[in-house]
Amino acid sequence: MKDYVIFATDLARKAGTIITENLSLGMKKELKKKDNSPFTASDVFINNMVIEEIAREYPEHSVIGEEKSNERDSDYVWVCDPIDGTIPFSSGIPISSFSLALTKNGIPIIGVIYDPFMDRLFVAEKGRGACLNNEKIFITQENTLKNQPVYMGWWKHSLYDLSLLRGNLSKRGIKIMDFCSFAYAGALVAAGEFSGIIFGDRYPWDVAAMKVIIEEAGGKCTDFTGENQRYDEETNGFVAGNVSVHSELLNLVKKFAVKN
Amino acid sequence: MKDYVIFATDLARKAGTIITENLSLGMKKELKKKDNSPFTASDVFINNMVIEEIAREYPEHSVIGEEKSNERDSDYVWVCDPIDGTIPFSSGIPISSFSLALTKNGIPIIGVIYDPFMDRLFVAEKGRGACLNNEKIFITQENTLKNQPVYMGWWKHSLYDLSLLRGNLSKRGIKIMDFCSFAYAGALVAAGEFSGIIFGDRYPWDVAAMKVIIEEAGGKCTDFTGENQRYDEETNGFVAGNVSVHSELLNLVKKFAVKN
Repeated sequence: MKDYVIFATDLARKAGTIITENLSLGMKKELKKKDNSPFTASDVFINNMVIEEIAREYPEHSVIGEEKSNERDSDYVWVCDPIDGTIPFSSGIPISSFSLALTKNGIPIIGVIYDPFMDRLFVAEKGRGACLNNEKIFITQENTLKNQPVYMGWWKHSLYDLSLLRGNLSKRGIKIMDFCSFAYAGALVAAGEFSGIIFGDRYPWDVAAMKVIIEEAGGKCTDFTGENQRYDEETNGFVAGNVSVHSELLNLVKKFAVKN
Repeated sequence: MKDYVIFATDLARKAGTIITENLSLGMKKELKKKDNSPFTASDVFINNMVIEEIAREYPEHSVIGEEKSNERDSDYVWVCDPIDGTIPFSSGIPISSFSLALTKNGIPIIGVIYDPFMDRLFVAEKGRGACLNNEKIFITQENTLKNQPVYMGWWKHSLYDLSLLRGNLSKRGIKIMDFCSFAYAGALVAAGEFSGIIFGDRYPWDVAAMKVIIEEAGGKCTDFTGENQRYDEETNGFVAGNVSVHSELLNLVKKFAVKN
């Protein structure tokens, strides 16, 4: 049985090759019936690869993937977004990543986010710190939201409508980014590039890997009520930043996020 | 005297080399006093290079740049964003471009947008079509906003607050992107990847090149009142898409955009 981190990073690099080789303008995409969001052949291919490799290496473990799951009765659940950022990927924009977490009883213990375009491999193991390409990374020390962008994501089918929150943050002069590649943005919070991140949705594959990566980089992550949550089932939003930024963002979330 | 298109594309490639060579995580950036937006040494370096090369080749022409201008009394004004997307660039994200237009009496007659990370060179000459790497490009034929993202950009210091508009579009199930690299997004509208674009600000360097590129790809561009405008001075917002998408977006802009 392979070491979990080696297994997950090997998988990430394989997925990365598929992502970079298939990025193009004019890509064929289909829209999911449930919410009109796009998916491509590459999303499905990577998701299947993840399920097969986990079934071979850890046959007793469960897998939850954005496109397909393989559920078992196990404390160990791998949570995967085969292409985090299918919208930019399917529009030919190089800001997608592969995201994979191993959760034990709902708690992410391994997190891997891989940006194959810049060859940036973000890895964290619970209790052992977070790294980018084997160098330790740390969340920003700045306690103001003003100097670095905040990443936000939501749309019609999200659990929460963040329009009011977006408006409030903009009015305070805070720079907002939303490039529809959520795990990648979380990795950039862990690396100190963005000050914080707010996600108004329910999908664990968007947030499971970044949960452990951001925390191991010194940050704080909770749901929209400020509580810890499981990452192997539907989540209740996600807020992260350093302790002070997290507290400021959480207060704003409580005030301005509207449940759909 | 060099052909304008050859001159502009040569400059774009030189700028592109500077952009790719200097992209990194943890980049040093400063914040502008007037609006707290970031700029880097690369923005300034490229802007100076553009001014110098235009002064050498076309000494009678004027230059308006995001970081520095060189104004002359001339019908010909070059309008340049040395790094469109300084926010992603300074956060280590590869979605920036170089944007340069030549305007004559306020009308963009040449537009060049260059994405050096994907080596995508978008060029248009008024009346002669728009190309990506020498192949003709066309705006989407789809008359619905639902299938492809709409790009929107604004913040505290913008001319217009688009929070209400963003909320309205989200509620209709329209996917919104905002990666703070506006010219690049406009090029993707021209290439048929995004359905439309809405920009709530006043800066001509964000929109001058895309104006001619989108129109030569078959699209329509106006200000927020639906009128044509000059692109060698402050602009009054910017809306673009194919004729039908433009009309739908313009109606929503008129209803929901709030002047700051």
